Amino acid sequence: MIDPISISSLKVGSTIILGKTSLREKEIIEYATTFDPLPFHINKEAGKKSIFKGIIASGPHIFTKIHKEFWIPRFGHSVVCGIEVNNWKFLKPTYPETEITGIVEVKSIEENIRPEMKEISWYYSFLDENQEAIQTLELKIMHHSNDINS
Amino acid sequence: MIDPISISSLKVGSTIILGKTSLREKEIIEYATTFDPLPFHINKEAGKKSIFKGIIASGPHIFTKIHKEFWIPRFGHSVVCGIEVNNWKFLKPTYPETEITGIVEVKSIEENIRPEMKEISWYYSFLDENQEAIQTLELKIMHHSNDINS
Repeated sequence: MIDPISISSLKVGSTIILGKTSLREKEIIEYATTFDPLPFHINKEAGKKSIFKGIIASGPHIFTKIHKEFWIPRFGHSVVCGIEVNNWKFLKPTYPETEITGIVEVKSIEENIRPEMKEISWYYSFLDENQEAIQTLELKIMHHSNDINS
Repeated sequence: MIDPISISSLKVGSTIILGKTSLREKEIIEYATTFDPLPFHINKEAGKKSIFKGIIASGPHIFTKIHKEFWIPRFGHSVVCGIEVNNWKFLKPTYPETEITGIVEVKSIEENIRPEMKEISWYYSFLDENQEAIQTLELKIMHHSNDINS
């Protein structure tokens, strides 16, 4: 059980270790079959013949899973809408069973013309077992400023 | 049936009308329940009370569907890997049953140090029935340069 965090408690630089997860090969194949059916995401032989030498997850899969399991329980209550995604860099492939740590940092907080809302730019990092970033991205979201405990 | 298009036939400025689609309310709720379970994506009453006055699709949903149904059949054969996403702007909400047209333009083509590969920056636009953009995004992908017909 993950407790929600108040938006009003956040400052620029606030960093939250979201949690650790991994993708099973079956999960990778199912996701990519539905959304991104390139051969090296869904077929073992095609994976082996690719530059990756094995099946890898569709780019957005690891973000999608960590955002849903670890970010939404903490901050989902305050979301008004998404605004923009930038610098989503696919730095290294996501292989099955690799333990990935999701971290998010508050990069900027902008006041809105509507005082009951704030724009927050969230910087996500996804690290592998060697603490190397496999992906990073910036997601700007409009939040209700007066959420829990404020 | 959509025929593949040769990467070597593309020039900067080449524009492809990918196709038209829409999201049913049931489909929006199912996708968001799995990946982005915010109340205004999955619950009619919460949608009505939100700034959108009704259920709207999770941000990535329309891209995901159009990319899979219309882009991958044309260009998927040549993908080496994804590199980066930028300027993914959520300009207007995606309501159920709105007809959305997906268009993609080749924004840049960069030669790679490996002559058998090229980096292409694809600029996607998703237009509603009034030809207004609901989302735009730039997706940079590494392609095999020597694909079909080349």
